[in-house]
Amino acid sequence: MRFTSEQRLDDGVLEREFTLGEIPGILWTPGSASTSAPAPLILLGHPPLGLRKMYPRLSARARQAAADGFATATIELPGNGDRPRWPALEEARADLRRAMEAGERVSDEIVDALVLPLVEKAVPEWQAALDALLALPDVSGPVGYSGGVISIGTRLAVVEPRISAAVLFAGSFVPRVMFEEARQVTIPLHVLLQWDDEGNERQAALDLFDAFGSKEKTLHANMGGHTGVPQFAGDAAAQFFTRHLK
Amino acid sequence: MRFTSEQRLDDGVLEREFTLGEIPGILWTPGSASTSAPAPLILLGHPPLGLRKMYPRLSARARQAAADGFATATIELPGNGDRPRWPALEEARADLRRAMEAGERVSDEIVDALVLPLVEKAVPEWQAALDALLALPDVSGPVGYSGGVISIGTRLAVVEPRISAAVLFAGSFVPRVMFEEARQVTIPLHVLLQWDDEGNERQAALDLFDAFGSKEKTLHANMGGHTGVPQFAGDAAAQFFTRHLK
Repeated sequence: MRFTSEQRLDDGVLEREFTLGEIPGILWTPGSASTSAPAPLILLGHPPLGLRKMYPRLSARARQAAADGFATATIELPGNGDRPRWPALEEARADLRRAMEAGERVSDEIVDALVLPLVEKAVPEWQAALDALLALPDVSGPVGYSGGVISIGTRLAVVEPRISAAVLFAGSFVPRVMFEEARQVTIPLHVLLQWDDEGNERQAALDLFDAFGSKEKTLHANMGGHTGVPQFAGDAAAQFFTRHLK
Repeated sequence: MRFTSEQRLDDGVLEREFTLGEIPGILWTPGSASTSAPAPLILLGHPPLGLRKMYPRLSARARQAAADGFATATIELPGNGDRPRWPALEEARADLRRAMEAGERVSDEIVDALVLPLVEKAVPEWQAALDALLALPDVSGPVGYSGGVISIGTRLAVVEPRISAAVLFAGSFVPRVMFEEARQVTIPLHVLLQWDDEGNERQAALDLFDAFGSKEKTLHANMGGHTGVPQFAGDAAAQFFTRHLK
């Protein structure tokens, strides 16, 4: 892990860009981190739209988390942003676009091709990032995972024992096999569902919530579309992490 | 409204029993109420099991609300507790019991007979209680409604303009007509659903949540049965009232 830039934001949060091999990422630590105990870490997942495009929302989440005493970090997804193009992913996206423009039901094959390779490739990268981040003096466990592609969050919750709690956003295409995988999740979950999210199946989100094996799981459904998560829902997710990671 | 007893609880909350005509009720006001501004009121709904049986849970909710600066009040439901027997209600309950013991689906007729007369009779009583409570010097608007039979809460939210926000518990038999009525609700709603509640239909609860006309409505689903609402879910409901009534 190599830091490539560093800036102190106006609220005292330290924002550092880094690369992990070829993967760009960003780390935010609370303003007081250098003088106090290492901060527990929340990994900030995000939809596959590229880090640059997601930066405003990610940094807002990072600042809120820093105010609660958390370090946060994110990395670019494979085939996204400034990372090398990934022809298979672009083909799957083109198939998805064609199906949606034709008003067709998005087939299981398209969803699988769109999501499963991304999960296979991204999850070990997030684990490698976790190795590097936890080696830093101002970052510590326990670790939370928040948001992004719900299948990536689900797989991480199953395979990565250092992740103790997760906030998941119901709102991505979910391959059928992930419903089986969801049963293996046992960590506390806080699932956000935008009730009127265009282009996502509400029933699939409810089925996935039902499938998670966790004894403590909470579903928060709110009105509005994909990006309309109300402030109070963000606050509730923050309280969930405070309850589980502190 | 006539106060029949008064006691100061150990956390300073003033608990007063009252009667409103033949209807018994309880009013809780924060410890500091006599010396400060009147407290906004939350009406505490409850399932039709009698106030005495419900007292431990109601007083716990009242104390939490008092800590947040709210007055709370509740009244006995018709045909329940120490109120005169109501043969029609008892007959409907007996029909329900028979159907459940026989393992039959509870018919719409039974649900209607069980719930609709209760709604018809209880709602004007809660409105009369509201008249009397808001005339007291230490109680004020805005008013919230919390919990209990969801059809009573729904009707109150439609017909009583002094109620500004409601926390509803998905977990009662809901007559079909209430789904239509739900569309007329416009106040902010916070709906609690126990995901694994025995004897209540999860899908009906989700359909009712979907039907509510409110622009701001939130569903919080948690694990556990009817009485297993976790502490953090109660805290979130309290925050909802603080957001809307203060």
